[in-house]
Amino acid sequence: TIRPPAFERLVDALSRFPSIGPKTAARIALWLLNQPPEASERIARAITEARQTIRRCRICFQYAEDELCPVCADPARDKSILCVVEEAVDVWSFERTGRYRGTYHVLGGAISPLDGIGPDELTVQALLERVADPAQGIAEVILATDPDTEGNATALFIADHLPRSRVKVSRLAHGLPVGGELAYSDDATLAEALAGRRIL
Amino acid sequence: TIRPPAFERLVDALSRFPSIGPKTAARIALWLLNQPPEASERIARAITEARQTIRRCRICFQYAEDELCPVCADPARDKSILCVVEEAVDVWSFERTGRYRGTYHVLGGAISPLDGIGPDELTVQALLERVADPAQGIAEVILATDPDTEGNATALFIADHLPRSRVKVSRLAHGLPVGGELAYSDDATLAEALAGRRIL
Repeated sequence: TIRPPAFERLVDALSRFPSIGPKTAARIALWLLNQPPEASERIARAITEARQTIRRCRICFQYAEDELCPVCADPARDKSILCVVEEAVDVWSFERTGRYRGTYHVLGGAISPLDGIGPDELTVQALLERVADPAQGIAEVILATDPDTEGNATALFIADHLPRSRVKVSRLAHGLPVGGELAYSDDATLAEALAGRRIL
Repeated sequence: TIRPPAFERLVDALSRFPSIGPKTAARIALWLLNQPPEASERIARAITEARQTIRRCRICFQYAEDELCPVCADPARDKSILCVVEEAVDVWSFERTGRYRGTYHVLGGAISPLDGIGPDELTVQALLERVADPAQGIAEVILATDPDTEGNATALFIADHLPRSRVKVSRLAHGLPVGGELAYSDDATLAEALAGRRIL
């Protein structure tokens, strides 16, 4: 082939990105070659740096640059109410509403037997231990998994394993589009769903 | 904001890619965080490596990893016929047809006064010197700039400055979609256009 091997390797690497096909990857690769070296270096460094500095919060498993995320590290947050979500992006959606003052727990996905994902592939055990520990003072758990099949199944599984005599367990109110993904709902809808959450 | 600063910097860097909006950039950034460190490191390295190893061929200005590109370095290529294109991707399109055995010259774009691009911003002078040098033995120049306004103007400008008593000057046959971009034409159409090129 006439294309330089380093170019082919770059297109190949960029083609792995989600929602990027080979044509877009080639367009991005050509664009990168036409950038000043500092600009392409800055992008390469941003990838390396993000991968090296971003880790999971020791308590809630959302993305953090320190041992604790900003929410868990904030003494002003209400530790008695815990919002359980599938992914860190869902935390960001709640934070954008500005209507939630409790803490979070990020599961890392939803239970999906077809994909080989059971409770052990998620942070379910850590969640159950966190809620079971009286020192944490958790009085309510909001199961804010996605309103789709896997998310509903995950919420039911967790609800079944929580000490429901001691903690209130709720699910977000409908208002979320059924079958949709929480991260893509608009802020007003999400705030409504939060306010209208119902006790399970 | 709740998002880690390193994450914001990564999304910001990825948003600069052509045809990538902020939402796609965030999706790619999250995907990168969920890759094993080797995988994201491989992508960062591919960017750095491509930028460092790929340069312009000393003779024809297409992308190369050595001083000469594979075409200019190949003694079997017909040095008497020269195909002038706007971009390196256009060379790749011709090579894919398998129907061209001559050499190339990459202009680096087209003359476009509105964008402040004149002959001096392109490799026009190097092209004229290359054709004027009798030692190069160039007998025909195919002006294969894009069949749009800038490409046509560029072809006419170059044709006016070539020693036409000594070299044949041709333009690709119509068959290329008017107003389109050469790099996106299919191989059969391009091969037809090459075969039917007309003398200017």
